[in-house]
Amino acid sequence: MSERSGEHERIARLLPRLHSSDALLVPNGDDAAVLRGSTKPLVATVDAVVDGVHFRRSFAPLDVLARRAVMGAASDLAAMGARPSALLIALVLPKALTDDELERLMAGVERAAVELDAVVAGGNLSGGEPLSITTTALGHLEGPPLTRAGAKVGDGIFLTGPPGHAALGLESLLRASEPEGIAPYRRAWLEPAAAIDAGLSLAGCAHACVDISDGLVQDLGHVCRASGVGATLELPPDPAFERSARALGVDPQPLQLTGGESYTLLYTAPGDCGVRSVRVGTVEAAEGIRLREGDAVRSLGDGGGFDHFTGGGDDE
Amino acid sequence: MSERSGEHERIARLLPRLHSSDALLVPNGDDAAVLRGSTKPLVATVDAVVDGVHFRRSFAPLDVLARRAVMGAASDLAAMGARPSALLIALVLPKALTDDELERLMAGVERAAVELDAVVAGGNLSGGEPLSITTTALGHLEGPPLTRAGAKVGDGIFLTGPPGHAALGLESLLRASEPEGIAPYRRAWLEPAAAIDAGLSLAGCAHACVDISDGLVQDLGHVCRASGVGATLELPPDPAFERSARALGVDPQPLQLTGGESYTLLYTAPGDCGVRSVRVGTVEAAEGIRLREGDAVRSLGDGGGFDHFTGGGDDE
Repeated sequence: MSERSGEHERIARLLPRLHSSDALLVPNGDDAAVLRGSTKPLVATVDAVVDGVHFRRSFAPLDVLARRAVMGAASDLAAMGARPSALLIALVLPKALTDDELERLMAGVERAAVELDAVVAGGNLSGGEPLSITTTALGHLEGPPLTRAGAKVGDGIFLTGPPGHAALGLESLLRASEPEGIAPYRRAWLEPAAAIDAGLSLAGCAHACVDISDGLVQDLGHVCRASGVGATLELPPDPAFERSARALGVDPQPLQLTGGESYTLLYTAPGDCGVRSVRVGTVEAAEGIRLREGDAVRSLGDGGGFDHFTGGGDDE
Repeated sequence: MSERSGEHERIARLLPRLHSSDALLVPNGDDAAVLRGSTKPLVATVDAVVDGVHFRRSFAPLDVLARRAVMGAASDLAAMGARPSALLIALVLPKALTDDELERLMAGVERAAVELDAVVAGGNLSGGEPLSITTTALGHLEGPPLTRAGAKVGDGIFLTGPPGHAALGLESLLRASEPEGIAPYRRAWLEPAAAIDAGLSLAGCAHACVDISDGLVQDLGHVCRASGVGATLELPPDPAFERSARALGVDPQPLQLTGGESYTLLYTAPGDCGVRSVRVGTVEAAEGIRLREGDAVRSLGDGGGFDHFTGGGDDE
């Protein structure tokens, strides 16, 4: 079919500047990327973001949105304890997208690659609607993999950042409402960084790790089910966050518990592994996930039931 | 945003049966796939197909279309002389797609993986329109890479299959017209196989190699420009193909020269490297691509100008 018109020309113009790394054994522009081999285990993940589903063009310039898309894939590497090495970027581009917009998008990809110390090893351009960015992130383990299974009764549950911040930022973007004090939460959604260094530090120390891109309770549920354990959460107070959520007209607690969109890592370990983190709970033998609020403890189910609140935040 | 509803449930149901390989060091369902390391160079490529752009649902059942999508990415590995090892599949799924249709789609992915002897190491499901399948194919080199640069004056130009067949099949599908004798050409488009074994045999023998997914003249143009050479083509007669093209109302020669959609490999070498192939021309010092027809020789430019005919076939 006929979408390939000009694909090579556009690729040729955009990719060469991204292809400068001694990790690449064949110059760019061939059928596939050729990367140096490594006896270290290879970690591979793919993540897609689609305009109107995962983001809206109105949220931010395309470089910001593209950088975030790449960070989303890289976050999966971070959660395995891997160091990124290469990215492949598959773009679906609406006809109306100008070359300037494409340049801007690629600038965001490039910025992410530089921050991640990874090479953009290849890509694919297709015409189509709507705009989408699919990132394949490749990396290597330097220690043992950080899996979801392995949480032990008595472990603390830690987050590398406070829960709900990115979800609050997204709510603010979706509502196009900017109450005072909302800016850092918008930045948490728009300008996240994959927690690569934290993941590397956690490998060999943490018993289990995930990112909480699907929300704290749901992702903790993945860990608990994979590990055959349960957990009780206790959310630390976060008064500025709570104020900003209320100013937006949103209940803060559901954002913290079920708001996804975050590249924060959740891990379980006896201590914080020397990684800057906040403790949000304890791994227990009793199945299910509970929330302690003062003296009261209520059940949150097993995490699976929270799926449909993901990203909603204010659905409760 | 809220597309992730049920993603894990669907992935959990569909992927486990695909995840049985000792190449995987961590059971499926974690943040990313962990694959055994290898000192052999890693070859990586990504390819997307979008409903309405690269295929139409009306062409064939989803398993056939999905298998073809995966083969398209694998073909890029074949053209580098790599052996496939793992696949990552990112799907954008319209809400209207039923679970049965998704099962069928995944069955096609699985069939391709079995044929390629590769493991489906991971994936990503997003809601959205239209249906798209983005395949990341990973493999390893067993010999030197087969690049586009390296064609030498005096080399023969060989194809691992006759040119234009898949393009004719696509024309027949697009026109929903089935003249007698068209079936093998439809199969050439619908049921292609990546030429993995041919690529492995060519590594270390062929001087340059590409697949002709963008069409013979355009892809030969890539080889010529990368190698600093030119070429003269001489198409072997293909009377059954010519008859079928005419029966469809299409001029056969443009299909052969510019019809893409094929996972046939083009390579240049002094001889056929022991790979079943048809010789279609000769590498020459004079820049540009020419076509010899009997005693007449006409210029086809440098291959770049054929871009806009890609997949059209009957645009001339």
